[in-house]
Amino acid sequence: MIDLVVVGAAEAATMAGPAPRLGPALGNAGLVHDAYVAVDGGRILGVGPMTAIPRDWRLAREVYDAAGQTVLPGFVDPHTHVVHAGDRTGEFRERLRGLSYAEIGRRGGGILSTVAATRAATGDRLVAEARPRLRRMLATGTTTAEVKSGYGLTTEDELKMLDAIARLDEPVELVATLLGGHEVPMEARADPEHYVNLVVNEMTPAAARQGIARFCDVFCESGVFDADQSRRMLRAGLEAGLQPRLHADQLTGCGGAELAAAVGARTADHLEQVSEAGIRAMAGAGVMAVLLPGASFFLGIEHAPARRLIDAGVAVALGTDCNPGSCPIESMAVIVGLACVALRLTPEEALCAATLNAAWALNVHDRLGSLEPGKQADLIAIADRDPAAIPYRFGSNLVTAVWKRGQRVV
Amino acid sequence: MIDLVVVGAAEAATMAGPAPRLGPALGNAGLVHDAYVAVDGGRILGVGPMTAIPRDWRLAREVYDAAGQTVLPGFVDPHTHVVHAGDRTGEFRERLRGLSYAEIGRRGGGILSTVAATRAATGDRLVAEARPRLRRMLATGTTTAEVKSGYGLTTEDELKMLDAIARLDEPVELVATLLGGHEVPMEARADPEHYVNLVVNEMTPAAARQGIARFCDVFCESGVFDADQSRRMLRAGLEAGLQPRLHADQLTGCGGAELAAAVGARTADHLEQVSEAGIRAMAGAGVMAVLLPGASFFLGIEHAPARRLIDAGVAVALGTDCNPGSCPIESMAVIVGLACVALRLTPEEALCAATLNAAWALNVHDRLGSLEPGKQADLIAIADRDPAAIPYRFGSNLVTAVWKRGQRVV
Repeated sequence: MIDLVVVGAAEAATMAGPAPRLGPALGNAGLVHDAYVAVDGGRILGVGPMTAIPRDWRLAREVYDAAGQTVLPGFVDPHTHVVHAGDRTGEFRERLRGLSYAEIGRRGGGILSTVAATRAATGDRLVAEARPRLRRMLATGTTTAEVKSGYGLTTEDELKMLDAIARLDEPVELVATLLGGHEVPMEARADPEHYVNLVVNEMTPAAARQGIARFCDVFCESGVFDADQSRRMLRAGLEAGLQPRLHADQLTGCGGAELAAAVGARTADHLEQVSEAGIRAMAGAGVMAVLLPGASFFLGIEHAPARRLIDAGVAVALGTDCNPGSCPIESMAVIVGLACVALRLTPEEALCAATLNAAWALNVHDRLGSLEPGKQADLIAIADRDPAAIPYRFGSNLVTAVWKRGQRVV
Repeated sequence: MIDLVVVGAAEAATMAGPAPRLGPALGNAGLVHDAYVAVDGGRILGVGPMTAIPRDWRLAREVYDAAGQTVLPGFVDPHTHVVHAGDRTGEFRERLRGLSYAEIGRRGGGILSTVAATRAATGDRLVAEARPRLRRMLATGTTTAEVKSGYGLTTEDELKMLDAIARLDEPVELVATLLGGHEVPMEARADPEHYVNLVVNEMTPAAARQGIARFCDVFCESGVFDADQSRRMLRAGLEAGLQPRLHADQLTGCGGAELAAAVGARTADHLEQVSEAGIRAMAGAGVMAVLLPGASFFLGIEHAPARRLIDAGVAVALGTDCNPGSCPIESMAVIVGLACVALRLTPEEALCAATLNAAWALNVHDRLGSLEPGKQADLIAIADRDPAAIPYRFGSNLVTAVWKRGQRVV
């Protein structure tokens, strides 16, 4: 008897097919009406219409009746900062009361306040603070998430963060990214080059030896790291075996997309201010755009030009950017809603960008991101006959069940 | 022994004090640190610091340890259309694919498609379709909600809707509004005056005799009902004992706020396009503004000038506008988040507008909307030490417990 069969789903939005999805193909959710999903040994055995379910798969140790529901792959969140210490709710309040970011920074707030709290925290503390966030992510359908370091900004503290990410792996499966180039730490403000050299010569090789991070990343932004500094840190990552990604063109257009293309980054993230040349360069180099509409929503800035990216042949994924400052959103369902309302993606495009394409962003698309035989059985069921209910019922959690590797976890 | 005591809450955001809150007072959440809430017979006995809890209230049939949590009054949602038949998820999809509202209307979509479905539905069907929506509202902390008719547009079908609202009362307590003037039904398009006369002479008196609706409401909007027609329908309500409210100045400024002031409406809702004269008239007449940022967010239109209204001395409440077309949002927590991010309210202002002031909008503030001795024990606990976490953790459901009349319902 197999482990699990989901039967009678009004729809399965399988996202089946090659990744990443480009152009009009992004809108193909691979729908199967009146569907079953059969699972054994943590893997998907088969997906298809109930009329064609093989006799052997009609019984299972767990039979889930999905009548009136839709089954989808678990969300893959390809960009988070969910591991950190400290609380910036108060800063959110101060900002709404009219305080500027600069003033908040002068009062000890902003990203460096999270750095101070994270440096002061033990690894156990980082693990304990992240757990409820990850639990809420799981409850809203996220089964895999990328998590960045970047609040340590010393080799020791960055490795401590990466170690916490490794310890938090499961039930939400985590993919770690070294973000040594997140910000110039306070003690290096007089000599940022010294910090860049530390990241290049010490931190990046040490993280590679530690063996947890799979990606490296830099915040390329006016006043943070310029394109040349970013390039040196990403190249160091590449040489150490960490695939580059890049925070690009968020607040100012500073050639981030062009740099991502030049260094062969897997993704360029944010892109609110991407140039036309940057879009062309990304399309030419096959760099994926990871769009983070939660951050532009929360900051009240312009959204990324999602349709222009798609039309130019750039593959697009969606992430939460979950972080204590610019976007505390934890739910990929909410991001799918924002992608529809603010970026004008269709529900099917947004769902594909939050599953299959997001899995490609993390280079786990061979195993995750769609409901196909042989793939890992990470799936969710929602209480609606139409997958478009996810963005439509904005802010309501429709998730009725979550399975990770075939095990029911919600 | 008393029924319930909530102990050790990091904060109680009591909202205690007279309603409605105006101007700077809107931002006073009545915080009590390290708080208890004592409840018996469905009513609040006392709220205060743990250091001052009377001995008799330390034990109760239910003791809820709120360590690390915040306790607040349950949300009051003063503007919903949550009772209706039919599904417009597909229309949301078509709109994102580029179809205009006009084209959707020509294809049989829009509000009149909900009217057709609601007319075709039995009362039982209306009740069954609304239940999961109300269940999700309760799960996100809403303990009282207004619900409008307005998808029947015949006397019989409007009374059927109001009857369904009465049958759905509890655990979310419902306050019913007759919205006969929601739209001109298809069969009356050649002679809208005939329909206005029907609302005035037949429907409104019949609804008053039925005894369920407490308010009447009209959609005063260019192309729907003009100010004169709206005035006649609201006056008919007033004469029949239904207090007027008004959908005012949403898509076009057409004197809705001024009309609300002239007829002595309790609230004017929407107000995205309100004029300066309208704001002054509302302040002068004591008409409350019910702001619905979910609708402006979903439609991608300008938001209401919340700060100008507050500064002018207009009392402000927040509602979801939950409806199948322009805003399917069910969660008041999400609306509180939108009010902060999009309307630039502070967390405390938004929370007060979603509880005490919202209770005033429904004329139930003597009984609901704050944690004060003698008031009904409708309260929620959230998993954070700071009430600002509600807007900050946008889209995450932080609610850990909900009590209605002192009974645990979530």
